[in-house]
Amino acid sequence: MTLCISLSARPSNLGTRFHNYLYEELGLNFIYKAFAPTNLADAIAGVRGLGIRGCAVSMPYKEDVIALIDDMDASASAIDSVNTIVNDGGHLTAYNTDFSAVQRLLAEQEVPSAYSVIVRGSGGMAKAVAAALHDAGFARGTIVARNEATGRALAALYNYGWAPEIGVLTADLIVNVTPLGMAGGAEAGAVSFPAATIEAASMVFDVVASPAETPLIVAARALGRPVITGAEVVALQAEEQFFLYTGIRPTPDQVRRASAFSHAL
Amino acid sequence: MTLCISLSARPSNLGTRFHNYLYEELGLNFIYKAFAPTNLADAIAGVRGLGIRGCAVSMPYKEDVIALIDDMDASASAIDSVNTIVNDGGHLTAYNTDFSAVQRLLAEQEVPSAYSVIVRGSGGMAKAVAAALHDAGFARGTIVARNEATGRALAALYNYGWAPEIGVLTADLIVNVTPLGMAGGAEAGAVSFPAATIEAASMVFDVVASPAETPLIVAARALGRPVITGAEVVALQAEEQFFLYTGIRPTPDQVRRASAFSHAL
Repeated sequence: MTLCISLSARPSNLGTRFHNYLYEELGLNFIYKAFAPTNLADAIAGVRGLGIRGCAVSMPYKEDVIALIDDMDASASAIDSVNTIVNDGGHLTAYNTDFSAVQRLLAEQEVPSAYSVIVRGSGGMAKAVAAALHDAGFARGTIVARNEATGRALAALYNYGWAPEIGVLTADLIVNVTPLGMAGGAEAGAVSFPAATIEAASMVFDVVASPAETPLIVAARALGRPVITGAEVVALQAEEQFFLYTGIRPTPDQVRRASAFSHAL
Repeated sequence: MTLCISLSARPSNLGTRFHNYLYEELGLNFIYKAFAPTNLADAIAGVRGLGIRGCAVSMPYKEDVIALIDDMDASASAIDSVNTIVNDGGHLTAYNTDFSAVQRLLAEQEVPSAYSVIVRGSGGMAKAVAAALHDAGFARGTIVARNEATGRALAALYNYGWAPEIGVLTADLIVNVTPLGMAGGAEAGAVSFPAATIEAASMVFDVVASPAETPLIVAARALGRPVITGAEVVALQAEEQFFLYTGIRPTPDQVRRASAFSHAL
């Protein structure tokens, strides 16, 4: 039986339920378990020494783990951040499937790279989104972030502009990468962009995955705008991890059911 | 969910099935998985770093692992051999539950320590048996082993005699700790002591666990001799491991069913 794990300071059941659902559905002799490591270096030694096949990496280990692995896939080196490790006989390769998932969603939805873009947020996931946009040819972007240091740094990486507040800014594609609208958060009810900005947009993307229908997504749908949801990002990145660990590409229906199961708590 | 594991060059399903059966029976949020480590030091680092609660240790790691743990329980230090590690918040204590199980069986069956003893074999398990006998006050013993170096060394440890062949030797308690009579072995059909030796014995102990009814046990029962079987040793050592990992002592009936389940392949 093959073991895959996750390493996180605060493990959630989402990955465990998603992967184990598909292992059972597909009859794979795999098991998935979430860990809160006491020591990251020892945990990664354990991945090697125990022959653990795959390892999801969450906060706060996404950058520290880089020093402990053997190879960086382009998806991880693009943003100096790892969320997935694959162990091939003791050789550890790091990936970032959040980055790949955003890339793939932009391509699948055929979002025109001529679109101007606003990315709201300047954390790790905002970096993944900005990098994916930049890689896909989106040349006109603005990072909106109150934190001037991280906001300016992220903007500078991709030759985008920076603004501390959204104000009256508009763009063709608007992306929320803040916790605004997240269930259980301090501002769960907040719409992460002003009504005028949503109305002026041609496409709306919210990285917040829970709820799938955030206030921003609800507002965008009401205006008939095409959307990309955080739930789509989460499902796609998990599908990509699943493929990297098992070599098997589950069907869209299987991913949908595994995703629904993992959120049904 | 708490993980317990085993480390062995050739993992079997026995421990996995025994422990997981009882976890389910008792409604414990535990899972047990067998590993063939690629590197012992990395694997033990992983036990610490991932917060793995318990770790069974099999061939060929029972002695090498001593350098990697923090404390030796008396059961392990008595024979310089580890088959169980318990992780208390990163502090690893090593035990030998084979040794404890043999000790407990001798006590439970009230085998008189005045009995003379023959132990056939000079490997790791023979050492556990000889040490348990010696600790329990059995002063008159003979180690029978073709390998003169290991046989003489083991005998010297406990002030027992050594003989290269069983010949016409007899004793009150005879113990087989060789693979003679083991299912699937080269000499599965062999009775590990001569008929005259079995007849002269007051008690017969076979450490071979599979089958539970070895040719030696069958012959001893036919003569009406009380027996201790290898299956009892295996079940008792597993029960002891289970207690060390979970703090819960399963009932004899639960152990019996878990043991039957683990052998029912």
